[in-house]
Amino acid sequence: MTRFALTLEFDGGPFQGLQRQSHGPSVQQTLEEAVEAVTGEQVTLHSAGRTDSGVHALAMRSHCDIEKDIAPFRLMEALNAKMRPLPVAVTQCEPVADDWHARFSCTGRRYIYRIVNRRAPLTLDKGRAWRIGQEVDAEAMHRAAQALVGRHDFTTFRSAHCQAKDPVKTIDWLDVARDGELVTVYAAARSFLHHQVRSMVGCLALVGMGRWEEERIAQALAARDRQQLGLNAPAHGLYFAEAIYPD
Amino acid sequence: MTRFALTLEFDGGPFQGLQRQSHGPSVQQTLEEAVEAVTGEQVTLHSAGRTDSGVHALAMRSHCDIEKDIAPFRLMEALNAKMRPLPVAVTQCEPVADDWHARFSCTGRRYIYRIVNRRAPLTLDKGRAWRIGQEVDAEAMHRAAQALVGRHDFTTFRSAHCQAKDPVKTIDWLDVARDGELVTVYAAARSFLHHQVRSMVGCLALVGMGRWEEERIAQALAARDRQQLGLNAPAHGLYFAEAIYPD
Repeated sequence: MTRFALTLEFDGGPFQGLQRQSHGPSVQQTLEEAVEAVTGEQVTLHSAGRTDSGVHALAMRSHCDIEKDIAPFRLMEALNAKMRPLPVAVTQCEPVADDWHARFSCTGRRYIYRIVNRRAPLTLDKGRAWRIGQEVDAEAMHRAAQALVGRHDFTTFRSAHCQAKDPVKTIDWLDVARDGELVTVYAAARSFLHHQVRSMVGCLALVGMGRWEEERIAQALAARDRQQLGLNAPAHGLYFAEAIYPD
Repeated sequence: MTRFALTLEFDGGPFQGLQRQSHGPSVQQTLEEAVEAVTGEQVTLHSAGRTDSGVHALAMRSHCDIEKDIAPFRLMEALNAKMRPLPVAVTQCEPVADDWHARFSCTGRRYIYRIVNRRAPLTLDKGRAWRIGQEVDAEAMHRAAQALVGRHDFTTFRSAHCQAKDPVKTIDWLDVARDGELVTVYAAARSFLHHQVRSMVGCLALVGMGRWEEERIAQALAARDRQQLGLNAPAHGLYFAEAIYPD
């Protein structure tokens, strides 16, 4: 048996999220079926994050255990061939130690959220970013975001369906930067609650649009009350960007 | 009558190119129909470039003449509303002098060509870049490209369907730069022949893959013979990036 670590890139648009779902195609199901087609083995794919329907990944990290003797490069090529034409690709594939776990060994997750700030509809970026027509103040968003950095109870910023036992998380950084019409939010933490990044981005966007005072972010956080959540940003602007592992 | 200059962004994928065609939807037809829906007027759209089927635009410049008294912002919004859900958008709209011409006043055109250099299939960049699986030497491509800069007879690098009377063009710059797996070609000239950028990129890619010696670019150019063309890069990696006008 060899444990293979896989790096996955996908367009979340056609998938019901990363995790296997009963009601539609998932990235997990697509990968597992490709592994079975290549090796004849039924495997379970474990991943660093559980992205929602519509959320993209630049470099999700996953693993599965395979009995068949197969070289990493051949496995990667074969999986990619089987998954065509679905927009998911294995970009790296390598054998790892049997106790390496894509989810439990992961010590850091990084997301980016892309906002295109303009009146005109999106064309090349359609389904790849959240378009906000009203001008947003990215510097105000960045300042307000700093109230969320650090260790806090993020009850306000979690989904009603969040399964985490503890709403306390530590945000390592939450930066907002503008480059022309593109406003990007960079978020890093050991782990996030369900919908946490989208909830934080949604509220920061309200600040950017001037509909919330900057201080209201800190107030919403302190309230520890989901009713204080202003807005959940749409899934299609969010990208799982990186999973961090010790050495 | 007011002449409106429009800046257009579009995903070339669903279109048979920019120019009106008898055999399928074009950007021109889409825009002209939107103008008619908004103003009741049949207009002709003139554009800085004539991009082929599948070629994208970040900032094409076009113009049309409209009798109706309508503010530029309202015109832009109405056109964008009419064109949904097609992936074409007016990103800027402004009145210009009656003798300003999107095509004939244009003194410079800039294109970029995106190559993603990796084994794995494209997901988020599908239809947005040319994937080359074999490793390419971007520095060799850049060096070889310099033989094309300047004033030359580009007969080798033009389409059999090119309608230009004169095959002599002046390339202002042709730069190739790598950023991770992305290799971008930047091309600028007053104007280009039909298929010129894609032909140049295709041959430079052969150099990058080691299938052509660097010197062969200069030899192919000097031959002034379309039979010497090595490869025409696919349309979906090409973007019309900018049109330049005096002041």
